[in-house]
Amino acid sequence: MEHRLHHFSTYLNENHVDVAFLNSPENVFYLSGFLTDPHERLLGLLVFPEADPIAVLPAMEQGQLRDAGWTYGIIGYEDHENPWELIQEQLPQHGIKDVQTAGIEKQVLSYGRSESLLGMFPGVNVVDVEDKLNEMRVIKDESEIAIIREAAELADYGVQVGIENLKEGISETEVIAAIEYELKKKGVTAMSFSTMALFGEKSGQPHGNPGDRKLKAGDFVLFDLGVVWKGYTSDITRTFVFKSVSKEQQVIYDKVKEAMDAALALSKPGTRIGDLDQTARNIIQEAGFGDKFPHRLGHGLGINVHEFPSMSHLNDDILQQGMTFTIEPGIYDPNIGGVRIEDDVLITENGCETLTKTPKTLRIVE
Amino acid sequence: MEHRLHHFSTYLNENHVDVAFLNSPENVFYLSGFLTDPHERLLGLLVFPEADPIAVLPAMEQGQLRDAGWTYGIIGYEDHENPWELIQEQLPQHGIKDVQTAGIEKQVLSYGRSESLLGMFPGVNVVDVEDKLNEMRVIKDESEIAIIREAAELADYGVQVGIENLKEGISETEVIAAIEYELKKKGVTAMSFSTMALFGEKSGQPHGNPGDRKLKAGDFVLFDLGVVWKGYTSDITRTFVFKSVSKEQQVIYDKVKEAMDAALALSKPGTRIGDLDQTARNIIQEAGFGDKFPHRLGHGLGINVHEFPSMSHLNDDILQQGMTFTIEPGIYDPNIGGVRIEDDVLITENGCETLTKTPKTLRIVE
Repeated sequence: MEHRLHHFSTYLNENHVDVAFLNSPENVFYLSGFLTDPHERLLGLLVFPEADPIAVLPAMEQGQLRDAGWTYGIIGYEDHENPWELIQEQLPQHGIKDVQTAGIEKQVLSYGRSESLLGMFPGVNVVDVEDKLNEMRVIKDESEIAIIREAAELADYGVQVGIENLKEGISETEVIAAIEYELKKKGVTAMSFSTMALFGEKSGQPHGNPGDRKLKAGDFVLFDLGVVWKGYTSDITRTFVFKSVSKEQQVIYDKVKEAMDAALALSKPGTRIGDLDQTARNIIQEAGFGDKFPHRLGHGLGINVHEFPSMSHLNDDILQQGMTFTIEPGIYDPNIGGVRIEDDVLITENGCETLTKTPKTLRIVE
Repeated sequence: MEHRLHHFSTYLNENHVDVAFLNSPENVFYLSGFLTDPHERLLGLLVFPEADPIAVLPAMEQGQLRDAGWTYGIIGYEDHENPWELIQEQLPQHGIKDVQTAGIEKQVLSYGRSESLLGMFPGVNVVDVEDKLNEMRVIKDESEIAIIREAAELADYGVQVGIENLKEGISETEVIAAIEYELKKKGVTAMSFSTMALFGEKSGQPHGNPGDRKLKAGDFVLFDLGVVWKGYTSDITRTFVFKSVSKEQQVIYDKVKEAMDAALALSKPGTRIGDLDQTARNIIQEAGFGDKFPHRLGHGLGINVHEFPSMSHLNDDILQQGMTFTIEPGIYDPNIGGVRIEDDVLITENGCETLTKTPKTLRIVE
């Protein structure tokens, strides 16, 4: 993590930011290697242009931070202590006196905590350093890619378990239980979001809730799932048909698959990101399903299951090697049901690799 | 939800707050009945002293909000739209013109969103309305208690499944998979936190991480788990011994049980909340384990698995009928292992009821 901290400190120095306070669990993990959910308790890093960083966290978690490899200062506080007072007391000992500009995560830091933090530095100028961290995080290094690859493999396994459990009369909820059971046995401690299995017409809701719906012949079966693995996430969607396929189902599936393939073909360094969505969307629109694809094409994927880049048609950024994101076009019809196909995609030197490997040709599950 | 909105509007009126903006999923659920995780998208309620409230959310979730019973105005936005601009355009149509005081959730609203919100009202005075919502939420009504009761019953069931799966050589992770599998089959879609099963010396870490540790005779077995059920949470801890119990284990267990019973005996309307922690802590301290009980006695429980009241010795508030919270004393020894016993407790008219019903006498699992 040392090179990441160094990179970020250099940025602070170049931009005349005297202190940055980061308290999203994701950025704390990215810069310290320590992954935890502090619930309502304060957990943060103070990073400076020149002085060593300081971690602030509940005293009882100090050992775990050290175990994660943190070699810098720690302000550990007990439940009855006010961490902000401890910070204010200790900053001068770290050589931090005159703070004119403070960097924060504007979308994360709560208004209440900003009052506590900024109250220490009267008249301070506030800048957002989240963009810089997002920019750093958007390009994954080898160690990160290795983990996301494992996470994607586990997502593939989840889909496989789902297929193996399909039988007439089973409910969406039962299939989900089976998937998560097998993943837990592989050591997965958290899914990256609530696992989705939607049958028949329920697959026609882009954000449907799984329930008691029982599987029957002719149903679409849509799985959308992912795991959290060593702090990184995966996210896969596959849609199958059970026992038989109707002509309308085949038409929708083929069109989504065509949109997917077109977006994948564009996935290489140098492409404008928004072109992926626009190309996939044009295909779906020209087939008359434009109003049935109501979401963006995908999202970046890493420590967060939704992070940068946003795979929206509005995104003018350029694809670069090391980016990881989802491509997930869909067509949703409330009567016929819906199809979504989603891969986790890594931009390589000359093109892309889909990290999720489950085949995408329409499969009729018997 | 109408009476809750009315109650909150009355509060705004009495305190001269012209508009409140709430965007924690918990408070949105509490006031609208609509439970969702909007990820990075904006989802909020604008509540006024007199005008009807307005919900702001992604357009594709409008139908679900209506299904949850929302009869008031909705500002639905597409991904490419700026919801703050839509709010600013529409407020005058709702008769909202002169905003001098705005209420927010200071611990929830991000600094960035506060800039967007408060930027609409130059010179506005900002007040925190979170305390009022916490105060409303701390007393559960009959419908909430009925749900928490079901959630607690599912937590009991989870512990039972855990016990049934204990056998020589099974790992912590495998037992957790079995527990969550059976709960999913009962329709549970999310646990209220990462399920914990800790064996032997690992139970001696108050925040240990389950892993590959295999069960062997003489181990403590500590389960800490809970479910999210219809938007409410449960949280239970039980500690067992596997095959045999040592004298040191028995001593620790008996002391935690004694602390638990003492705290439960005080659980009735009129008791100062801090007295529960202090009484339990005195018992543990007098037995020489004071430094081995490093956390507060418990926490409120409801839509959040950690909410008010805080069961800390510093809390001067008074127990009232309808409060729900955990009592969870513990003693953690890195060599012998740890014991924690945790119930979900409801304050009744004259005393309390433990909603979690798993027996608390030390059980030797064969």
